[in-house]
Amino acid sequence: MIYLDNAATSYPKPDRVYDEMLLCMKEYCANPGRSGHELAIKTGRAVYETREIVSRFFNIENPMRVVFTKNATEALNLAINGVLKEGEHVITTSMEHNSVLRPLKTLERNNIIELTIVWGNYFGEIDVADIERSIKKNTKMIICSLSSNVNGIIMPVKEIGKITRERGILFLVDASQGAGSIKLDVQEINADLFAVPGHKDLLGPQGVGALYVNENVEITPIMQGGTGSRSESFYQPEIFPDMLESGTLNAPGIVGLGFGIKFIESFGVDNIRIYKHMLIKRLYEGIENLNGIKLYSLKDMDKNSGIISFNFIGVDSTKVSFMLDRIYGIASRSGLHCAPLAHETIGTKATGTVRLSVGCFNTIEEIDTTIEALREISQGL
Amino acid sequence: MIYLDNAATSYPKPDRVYDEMLLCMKEYCANPGRSGHELAIKTGRAVYETREIVSRFFNIENPMRVVFTKNATEALNLAINGVLKEGEHVITTSMEHNSVLRPLKTLERNNIIELTIVWGNYFGEIDVADIERSIKKNTKMIICSLSSNVNGIIMPVKEIGKITRERGILFLVDASQGAGSIKLDVQEINADLFAVPGHKDLLGPQGVGALYVNENVEITPIMQGGTGSRSESFYQPEIFPDMLESGTLNAPGIVGLGFGIKFIESFGVDNIRIYKHMLIKRLYEGIENLNGIKLYSLKDMDKNSGIISFNFIGVDSTKVSFMLDRIYGIASRSGLHCAPLAHETIGTKATGTVRLSVGCFNTIEEIDTTIEALREISQGL
Repeated sequence: MIYLDNAATSYPKPDRVYDEMLLCMKEYCANPGRSGHELAIKTGRAVYETREIVSRFFNIENPMRVVFTKNATEALNLAINGVLKEGEHVITTSMEHNSVLRPLKTLERNNIIELTIVWGNYFGEIDVADIERSIKKNTKMIICSLSSNVNGIIMPVKEIGKITRERGILFLVDASQGAGSIKLDVQEINADLFAVPGHKDLLGPQGVGALYVNENVEITPIMQGGTGSRSESFYQPEIFPDMLESGTLNAPGIVGLGFGIKFIESFGVDNIRIYKHMLIKRLYEGIENLNGIKLYSLKDMDKNSGIISFNFIGVDSTKVSFMLDRIYGIASRSGLHCAPLAHETIGTKATGTVRLSVGCFNTIEEIDTTIEALREISQGL
Repeated sequence: MIYLDNAATSYPKPDRVYDEMLLCMKEYCANPGRSGHELAIKTGRAVYETREIVSRFFNIENPMRVVFTKNATEALNLAINGVLKEGEHVITTSMEHNSVLRPLKTLERNNIIELTIVWGNYFGEIDVADIERSIKKNTKMIICSLSSNVNGIIMPVKEIGKITRERGILFLVDASQGAGSIKLDVQEINADLFAVPGHKDLLGPQGVGALYVNENVEITPIMQGGTGSRSESFYQPEIFPDMLESGTLNAPGIVGLGFGIKFIESFGVDNIRIYKHMLIKRLYEGIENLNGIKLYSLKDMDKNSGIISFNFIGVDSTKVSFMLDRIYGIASRSGLHCAPLAHETIGTKATGTVRLSVGCFNTIEEIDTTIEALREISQGL
């Protein structure tokens, strides 16, 4: 099996991630932040250590502003539904995932917010001037992904962050695609809110994500429950991160995320980026001239987080993915990738695309085998 | 270490739970329900198998009505915030956890719902007639736990379920304490909504819970996002379970939950209940006559899910828990256990209690050592 579906979930993980999760579960996994006994304290400490690792990795000053969620979708829902109020205006882009679009469109349908979607060009490139022109008096938040999960295009988050800081608008970055293989500093990009999944390029397991909330953000929880703190109160304590972390945390998952990030740190984010770029470039050059192929990702590797989206003209994307899987044992993802407007932007709403996404454990040999497979498929069509 | 904090998180888990989670993560953990390749399909199948296992275990007819959440708190928030509408009346009990009380009190504070809390007696026993008397024309939902996390008292869910069915009121059962060691049939207790955590008596890992939603319940999601289905739509698909499961699921956690339940099935729920009762009875009888002790749990083992709450009169509960941990290596939990009204009910709001909660992996020797430790502590006070 050649796994080229890393944009959905990275696979495999570093061995240490498995080992430390198992160690946590077997040796000390009590309830973090609840009881005062040795195991609970050890679990609580392990959770806090991951807060520190996440903070160090993204240059977040205060680890207590890192909130653990079940995935990036919960983090984004919290950032959107916990912050936006009636009558506020939001700007986002056509390249966003349904985890951003669906909460926003639901708020718009319920007459809570006003929504402007700025469209990208054929490759999904956003003109920052379009975003700036869309700002109104009541613009509360601009939301942009770090890179598209459909074609890998890297978005101008640094430029948008400058505008939001100047204009006093909140900036929510959906870093689901790219966090872990693109160097990121929340202070440098001026992110007020910053959502990541654990299970993609951060090399952690499924079942954990995180939201960073800057001190200037007023946010209310979307869930209430036990926090192990101020238990006598009928309402959520207003302290971070408890306010936004009701119920028992996924301690082994959080530990796994921490060791995923530690692996990246030991290897170097830039080295991972360079390695992934080398793989993607090789893949791109190996398939760009195939018979009938149309590529929707950019060749410029500084603008691509590690994804190639393509179609063979006139052939259903699902069919190609199916052939890759069944004949060649190559895992890809076809269809709309939960991002309908991104496909509309790049002109593939009706067909979807075949998406190949590399991870740091893919090899040159796997890329070459994939190129050969696609060459054979293109010849047979 | 003697672990008597199973009501917070059960520990350890059956070996198979660790093994199968690791196997899932190492061998096939792609993104369930997203891509069409072999690994994704295998992961999706494993998730579906757990839906079937959960359904079989609680006698749920349609596995598609089992929604996976990150914990019981999310399940309860979904059941409360996703169902209740403005002007509706809710009845609950004073024995509930903050995962029920805080969402309800927040809705009440925001003038969305009207709330009646029915008080238990000194042991937290609820008179079903009090619940029936509290029903109004606009009563939409009655919420009751299966058993209290503070003192283990088993609640009259079967009797309440009869009333709700007769009166056309929705019944939400918080089965966080007891599911896995008390035989439960959602149809027999007439539960319309039924929430469980994976990490307590169901012997699964942290990071997974479930909500059962009966076909008669109108529910809207509290989060929106990618579902891998109807991706072209800006809104959540109205199909189950996708509508309520946005974002990537915790596949290894769900697999672990499935194998936790399978372990219980192979052992027999009733056998686990009997074994836990034997341990609790032994503990109860071993400590009930200690100098200065006051017990807040019932001796009648048919009314106790496996918890003994107590204090030494005049001694802070935290101090006793601390001594148990540091001197004797016994893990307990002191304080309010995220259930302030339950402590008010049993008269321990100011002091909290020491809580000892047994699990199916505790031994008679551990119970005897604990009795001896408490005897020593009581003599030294």
